[in-house]
This record gives sequence, C-alpha cells and structure tokens, in this order.
Amino acid sequence: MAASNLEDIFLMTLKDMYHGEKQIVKALPKMAKHAESPQLKEALNHHLEETKGQVGRLERVFQLMDKPARGETCEAIKGLIEEGEELMEKADNGAVCDAGMIGVSQAIEHYEMARYGTLIAWARQLGLTEATDLLEETLNQEKKADAKLNDIALHEVNRKAA
Amino acid sequence: MAASNLEDIFLMTLKDMYHGEKQIVKALPKMAKHAESPQLKEALNHHLEETKGQVGRLERVFQLMDKPARGETCEAIKGLIEEGEELMEKADNGAVCDAGMIGVSQAIEHYEMARYGTLIAWARQLGLTEATDLLEETLNQEKKADAKLNDIALHEVNRKAA
Repeated sequence: MAASNLEDIFLMTLKDMYHGEKQIVKALPKMAKHAESPQLKEALNHHLEETKGQVGRLERVFQLMDKPARGETCEAIKGLIEEGEELMEKADNGAVCDAGMIGVSQAIEHYEMARYGTLIAWARQLGLTEATDLLEETLNQEKKADAKLNDIALHEVNRKAA
Repeated sequence: MAASNLEDIFLMTLKDMYHGEKQIVKALPKMAKHAESPQLKEALNHHLEETKGQVGRLERVFQLMDKPARGETCEAIKGLIEEGEELMEKADNGAVCDAGMIGVSQAIEHYEMARYGTLIAWARQLGLTEATDLLEETLNQEKKADAKLNDIALHEVNRKAA
C-alpha cells in the first residue's frame, strides 16, 4: 500500500499501535506474575485492565474511519517485550528484575506516548474530533502509568536493587 | 551473563543504547537526504552531529566503569529504523514522507528519553556522579531534538501532508 496522504500514515500508525497494544495485553500478566514488589505487581495488573480498554478505543477509531481493525507488526514493542523476557530469564535477584522490568515498561510507555502524540496531532489536522478525544484519553493513561512506575522505581525498587 | 545487581542491568542498558545510537548515526544521513522540508533536513543533520557526541559520551561512561565499550542489538531502535525505511519506500508524496519520518524520529527520541531517564536514575543510585552528568547532557539534547521535531510537524509539515 502506498502512502499518499496524512490519512494513509494515520492508518498505518493506528495498525502499528493496535498490534502493539494487543502484544502488551499478552505480555503484562507474565510480568505481573514475575514482579516481587507488591506495588509493581498491582501497577502492572492495573495497566493490563487499562490496556484492554485502549485496544477497544483503537477499534472504535478504526470504526470511525470505516476501516476494519487490523494490526501490523509493531517491531519496536515486539523488541521491547523480548527484552523484558530476556531480563526475566537473566535476573537472579527479585529487586534487580523489578528495576529492569520497570525500565522496559517505561520505554514501552514512552514509545506509546510518542505514537499517540503523533496520532493526536494528525487526527486533529484531519478534523477527526471523536478520534482525537479517544486517543487523548489513552495518552493520559499512558502518562499516568509512566509516572506511577517512576515513583515505584525511585521510592522503592532501585534502592533494593543497588 | 546473569543480572545480579543494579550495575549489571545498568551495563546491559548502556550496551543497548550504544548499539542504538550507532544505528541512528548510520540512519540519519539517509533520512536527512530524503527530507523535503529544509527545516526538517537541517534538524536531522544537526541531530546527526549531536548523536555522534552521544556515542562519545557513552564510550566515556564505559571507560568510567572500567568496561570495554560494546553494543548489544537494540531491537526497539532497529525496528523503528526499519519502520522509517519502509515509510520512505511507501510514501509517494514529500510532505507525507516528512510527516511520517518526524513521527518515527519522535518515537526514537521518546524511547531514548525513557532509557536515558532510567540510566540516570540507576547511575545516581550507584553513586556514579560523572556518568550521571554525561547522561543528563545527552537526555537534554534528546528532549530538545524532540521539541524541535514537534514544532516542525505542527507549524509546517502536517498541514502540507493533509
């Protein structure tokens, strides 16, 4: 498929995020199970529920564009999840594993914040008001999830891991 | 290699970023050549020079840790660079290609901001003062590069691409 206008790349990026969020829904339960810190476990489980809602919101955006909800492999999130799995294998200390998992999760959050930020700018440019609102709701959740992880790292996990 | 303490995962992440930054040094000239917007071309070329300095700063951090500077494949940045290449192939319109390249570049910047943020928190926890300062210098450059790209997208490129 050629990309000839902003709507084309909006759809390409939407498909990337749809695949990415679905990969995250699969990865989070394993990470939560591995987490030693009860706070981290709770944050990951909470974000799992949020992510399921984000998948639903993306499906609604596809519907608004009159397109089937279809994913296209998001290599960045795939790579980050693999990095998280490798870390869970290598870490022989619970707090170190937690610190590393927070790092990987924050990298995923930041990737998503960038992509949703771009999607929102494009949706606004295209006059897609409802899509803009839906994507902004998700972006705010990602920002809060990132801040929560930061808090857990700085106030609990990093010290234990050092 | 097992990860038993914070220093181990600090080094793992340092290697990931070292590989990532070197990949970016290779990718940026092609992106800059492809850019239609003179402002974007200039921003990408400027960031190429900054990125070379960031590679040097990472080498200095390895040196401070008394470790050889060695990279380990950063799948996230590799995937994002591939996404940028795919976009340059698919886009048959200069402004659309520019908008997409800015999106991919901002995703790379955000990934890096997350990773440097984590490295700084860990370096501080480990009492690595000089490394903290070096990594903060790089983080500030990434933030500025991201803001510049945002500005170009919002004030020039997105409108042309719509």
